[in-house]
Amino acid sequence: MSNSKITGTGCYIPTVIQENDKFLEHHFLNEDGSSFNAENEVIIEKFKSITGIEERRYAEKDMRTSDIAFLAAKKAIENAKINPEELDYIILAHNFGDVKAPGEQSDLVPSIAARVKHKLRIENPNCVAYDIIFGCPGWIEGVIHAQAFIKAEIAKKILVIGAETLSRVVDKSDRDSMIFSDGAGACVVEATSGVNTGILSHATQTFAKEEVGYLFFDKSFDLDANPEHRYIKMLGRKIYEFALNKVPQAMQTALVKSGKDIDDVKKIFIHQANEKMDEAIIKRFYRLFKKAVPEHIMPMNIHKFGNSSVATVPTLLDLVLKGEIENQEINKNDVVIFASVGAGMNINAIIYKF
Amino acid sequence: MSNSKITGTGCYIPTVIQENDKFLEHHFLNEDGSSFNAENEVIIEKFKSITGIEERRYAEKDMRTSDIAFLAAKKAIENAKINPEELDYIILAHNFGDVKAPGEQSDLVPSIAARVKHKLRIENPNCVAYDIIFGCPGWIEGVIHAQAFIKAEIAKKILVIGAETLSRVVDKSDRDSMIFSDGAGACVVEATSGVNTGILSHATQTFAKEEVGYLFFDKSFDLDANPEHRYIKMLGRKIYEFALNKVPQAMQTALVKSGKDIDDVKKIFIHQANEKMDEAIIKRFYRLFKKAVPEHIMPMNIHKFGNSSVATVPTLLDLVLKGEIENQEINKNDVVIFASVGAGMNINAIIYKF
Repeated sequence: MSNSKITGTGCYIPTVIQENDKFLEHHFLNEDGSSFNAENEVIIEKFKSITGIEERRYAEKDMRTSDIAFLAAKKAIENAKINPEELDYIILAHNFGDVKAPGEQSDLVPSIAARVKHKLRIENPNCVAYDIIFGCPGWIEGVIHAQAFIKAEIAKKILVIGAETLSRVVDKSDRDSMIFSDGAGACVVEATSGVNTGILSHATQTFAKEEVGYLFFDKSFDLDANPEHRYIKMLGRKIYEFALNKVPQAMQTALVKSGKDIDDVKKIFIHQANEKMDEAIIKRFYRLFKKAVPEHIMPMNIHKFGNSSVATVPTLLDLVLKGEIENQEINKNDVVIFASVGAGMNINAIIYKF
Repeated sequence: MSNSKITGTGCYIPTVIQENDKFLEHHFLNEDGSSFNAENEVIIEKFKSITGIEERRYAEKDMRTSDIAFLAAKKAIENAKINPEELDYIILAHNFGDVKAPGEQSDLVPSIAARVKHKLRIENPNCVAYDIIFGCPGWIEGVIHAQAFIKAEIAKKILVIGAETLSRVVDKSDRDSMIFSDGAGACVVEATSGVNTGILSHATQTFAKEEVGYLFFDKSFDLDANPEHRYIKMLGRKIYEFALNKVPQAMQTALVKSGKDIDDVKKIFIHQANEKMDEAIIKRFYRLFKKAVPEHIMPMNIHKFGNSSVATVPTLLDLVLKGEIENQEINKNDVVIFASVGAGMNINAIIYKF
């Protein structure tokens, strides 16, 4: 069976910068609609100390998920130096489709992947475009799909995109609205004859008992808001504990399957959800091997970009590969881990050798 | 590589019967909001003569896509006589997520597949649940995904569901609202060591040039309606011509790949979109082989069930396998074709041997 290798990456970083102080005027509420017993300065400072987020990016008003997905895809194709007509698949991970404004219906017909194929002006009808809905781990799962198609010998070149405009689904009265941002990242995955290179192994899990309700879509905390309009909602504490308990194990499972040693791991690209949570996951992962966390093991860009769901991992990967993150680089033969956690609740991890 | 076999099927037929005469009171409009120059009796009679649809099914008010998907899934699992805890994947095809009422936002967080896993009370976290967005051909494409995972040796038992509640996204002032219905169908796909059985071959295509706009999401024809509410819209004539030009070729491609002869084909399960269109596709398909269309080759249930998108093919398959469609049966060693066409525009076909 052929192996799968990432041959190009790209991302689109939206241009609207939303700094933390933009939230000073917001009227934050509790779930029951009551006012918060704290000043916004204090709420925002506490938020920053936990999540690490100082500012985040929002897509321009006239740009939708399919638009920013296209811009990231174009760069990944250029970076891979392939003819887009040779693509066998376009896999696009998102969770809300094209949304024009908060409260508006998601638009998924036709699929966002088909819209990106249209914008890329790909003529070849055998380039199959579909969307995957898998929470924040959707882009990593798309890469796993790509690997499956390559192993099954039904594809050789696959474009995998993660794109989301969470700024269109946040409830302004909910403090969690500060976490979410917009972004798009993409990569080209190609079949390779190299045996010990590319995707070495993966692990994926779905926890859908109580966990099915940890991330959901619901009305605003603001009792005066239109009750028909719904927004992204989360049980932050539950997600934090869940991620800490389950993600390190999934990463370990994937690493053991790969046959690689913990000391071989040079970088961990983890979904940028919350800085404290990500640090705690990495710490617990190394503790499973009775090791201390190595310096610079985990590149981060959450401080400036927030949590853009499916877009965080491919965006971070692209920036590190292009030398745009301080003290971070990837060299030939480096073993890295991609890992994510999100709505479902879903978890996944890939062990990858460059 | 292992082959893939359907080992169980199930469907849920919603209980609300919407007969054609229920549309007599509707005020049908042209795209520009002007009134139609015909009596509703005449419009409905013409509609019936083209599409074959006499009545259609709508889901009960308190049932959403995830609810009817669960009911179909449960039957497929029972029919396959498997322990649901052994499932490696739940793949769910839909295009609008859970929608409570017309004009309301689609709810995709968490994924519909995760909701179904929750309702099935599956504990095993290694059962991975995701949604695929691929227009009406989504269920067939999910079966192709299942085959890829089996060939790639990352899965052995997979549940593939197609479910949709189109009654929640139709514009009452649009004549095309009469086409659409609700439904859910499912199957279990398992790895098999049998070489010449199960899925023999497949073909999939995405046409996203001008075709990307043939099925879309847009405001009501009624100028007095809330302009923020959007509905499923289609360019019927364009779709008809497109399907006639492209679907027979895709079916031929898949058949040639399978190594089977046109005379081996015992049944064709085609997406129930429009009776006249389906008949024309089959006729053109046989013409490619210079053959006449055999009697009873194409089971149909559009007359009573309408077009339930991703649910039509698995529902029809389940009903034929269980002997619930007159003059239709499948016997061991029968070669059949599954084929579909829909938003994207996407086309696919599977050659399958029972």
